[in-house]
Amino acid sequence: MSGVSARPIEGSVTAPRGFRAAGVSCGIKAAGLDLALIVSDTPASAAGVFTVNRAQAAPVSVSRRNLSASSGRARAIVVNSGCANACTGAEGMRHAEAMAARTASTVGCGVPEVLVASTGVIGVALDMEKVTRGIASAAAALAPCGGKDAARAIMTTDPFPKAASVEMTSAPGTFRVGGIAKGSGMIEPNMATMLAFITTDAVVEPAILQRALKTVVDDTFNAITVDGECSTNDCVFALANGASGVTLGDADFSLLVEALRQVCEPLAVGIVRGGEGATKLVTVRVTGAASDADARRTARAIANSLLVKTAIHGGDPNWGRLVAVAGRSGSQFVLDAAAVHIGPIELFHAGTPHDDRAAQAAEYLKGTELVVTVDMGTGGSGTSQMWTCDLSAEYVRINAEYRT
Amino acid sequence: MSGVSARPIEGSVTAPRGFRAAGVSCGIKAAGLDLALIVSDTPASAAGVFTVNRAQAAPVSVSRRNLSASSGRARAIVVNSGCANACTGAEGMRHAEAMAARTASTVGCGVPEVLVASTGVIGVALDMEKVTRGIASAAAALAPCGGKDAARAIMTTDPFPKAASVEMTSAPGTFRVGGIAKGSGMIEPNMATMLAFITTDAVVEPAILQRALKTVVDDTFNAITVDGECSTNDCVFALANGASGVTLGDADFSLLVEALRQVCEPLAVGIVRGGEGATKLVTVRVTGAASDADARRTARAIANSLLVKTAIHGGDPNWGRLVAVAGRSGSQFVLDAAAVHIGPIELFHAGTPHDDRAAQAAEYLKGTELVVTVDMGTGGSGTSQMWTCDLSAEYVRINAEYRT
Repeated sequence: MSGVSARPIEGSVTAPRGFRAAGVSCGIKAAGLDLALIVSDTPASAAGVFTVNRAQAAPVSVSRRNLSASSGRARAIVVNSGCANACTGAEGMRHAEAMAARTASTVGCGVPEVLVASTGVIGVALDMEKVTRGIASAAAALAPCGGKDAARAIMTTDPFPKAASVEMTSAPGTFRVGGIAKGSGMIEPNMATMLAFITTDAVVEPAILQRALKTVVDDTFNAITVDGECSTNDCVFALANGASGVTLGDADFSLLVEALRQVCEPLAVGIVRGGEGATKLVTVRVTGAASDADARRTARAIANSLLVKTAIHGGDPNWGRLVAVAGRSGSQFVLDAAAVHIGPIELFHAGTPHDDRAAQAAEYLKGTELVVTVDMGTGGSGTSQMWTCDLSAEYVRINAEYRT
Repeated sequence: MSGVSARPIEGSVTAPRGFRAAGVSCGIKAAGLDLALIVSDTPASAAGVFTVNRAQAAPVSVSRRNLSASSGRARAIVVNSGCANACTGAEGMRHAEAMAARTASTVGCGVPEVLVASTGVIGVALDMEKVTRGIASAAAALAPCGGKDAARAIMTTDPFPKAASVEMTSAPGTFRVGGIAKGSGMIEPNMATMLAFITTDAVVEPAILQRALKTVVDDTFNAITVDGECSTNDCVFALANGASGVTLGDADFSLLVEALRQVCEPLAVGIVRGGEGATKLVTVRVTGAASDADARRTARAIANSLLVKTAIHGGDPNWGRLVAVAGRSGSQFVLDAAAVHIGPIELFHAGTPHDDRAAQAAEYLKGTELVVTVDMGTGGSGTSQMWTCDLSAEYVRINAEYRT
């Protein structure tokens, strides 16, 4: 993007001006931080992207409703880990509502200005005494450097916290975007819930923020997979509080998208890197498809294929599996013109295998940051990219462990 | 079905009258039988159901074409294991055609009356000298008791051969159906190719046979999954030679379907039982869906869910994973009315978990033949059933092994 510089900076949701955050321990998890609070000093434009799972957890329903009731304005995001408050019926709804209400009264804003999220075990009731205590101590701990603790407090079995931020210098001015995320960890919790919270000090109307967030989420958080599951609790929230004074209007839409992407992409990739049992990060690229939608469908099928993921785990340059998945993915596919690359090495093209390059490809697969590319051979310009990880016996061990 | 008795009998494709078969070793595989021939004494009605993978192997293309050129008549099925003849370009097509032609001249029929199938490694050329030798020795070995050898000759890494047959006694008369199948084994070959060959001595018009085969395949071979993959080489063929003199016309369609199902269901379930690394056979039932299509979509999602398959492997009665998959499956789902059973034990219903029954469910999950049932809570009458297996670390080990 010409005339725009994006400078990655230290920090997370509190890197943009006018945001404070905290992460505290209130005893929902057996150990560690388990309640996060992110607060904007002033009412912010707010946007949300939610799980498409029809078994939606109570906090998802409450946040959807609040976002709508406030016409896209929010002051605070409150999050607990250790309990998903999912499949908890009417009581769960009351708990999620109470979590929002308690945060509103503590922060000093309207209830609809609070977004709520939970992650952890399904089918267990939130301990509201602990949550209430947690909100009070988080509010007391709110600080402009508190994003790091918030990033830790939303973790379940993530192997590391995920945070990113960027300073954008552009024609409209200089502004910042920051974010935190948590990914897939399912040992104690039942699901790989994905949560991400993004902040910016740009001035953005709610409708534009919502549209930009949706666009970026499609290419980042919706372009990753660890095991093809979609949780009851997934959500991504964005807050824009305008503290930088830099206004991004309709004309700056692509700048806003680029700024959000600068933060969302490393967070999304971080989730895959921290996937359960993952030892390799794999970028799946599909080119030459009849449409972008076709390319996406095939990229998703490859990224979720057990045969591809196990072959990569074993360092096996098994291009036949990539061809077979591309062929069954439901997208237009022309075998006689298709091609497969593992890293830079072409192993199959236009009906001809290059198995003499297998040893070279096997060497490449010893790395931990890999790219595989399938050209669909249609001559079309459809492309897509997804991130996935390998499938290891460790994944099975983690998820087969008896929970109760 | 009233007035109909179905009696399982010893045997396979040669249980029906007028069929001979053989399985021989011609050196395509390092060891063991690797070429099968099934011949009807007289021209038979023929039907085929093929992989929907767009990367279709050469034998699939040739068999499709022959079936069409012969207007649904065939005398012989020739099959090799150890080499899929897939992704082999124009040379692969010539090889598959030569395999049909050589079989036709040996058996004494027209080339279009031969159906061809291959299973094994992708991207490797068939050794036609070995295949030619194999066809000659298989033709010499053809016998009315040769089905058992044919069942062995189509195996790749299947842990056991799969054969079934039934004698049907009904108003139109007594006739037999027999079949053999091979399933998922991917250590040396690259894919879980599924092949099945069904014979009957009933008199059936090709169009009726095709329609009945498609119906039965949907509820049997298309209702199983080991890892959600679909091979380049999958096919199911049926031959009806009329040797029993019992005619099954349009009015007997449901009898024909039932007869085919008697053979196809145990073959299909046998493939799952022999799935790579499988230790448990799981029947997934979905009820209360808005439509049968919705029920099927959800059953398939559950049967392929890594989280469900690993939980079952670990004996974990993790009903939350079943709810979450049902919710994300794309089908109509009403959480507040939904229910989950593990075996006969209800663990979740209408928003209420019954975790006090978890120990009982864990005990049930120690078995090796399991049923899980999800009611979608829509009040609809849509139902579906699929068979799957658990996912073990052994699956990963098998498929991660370096091939070259």
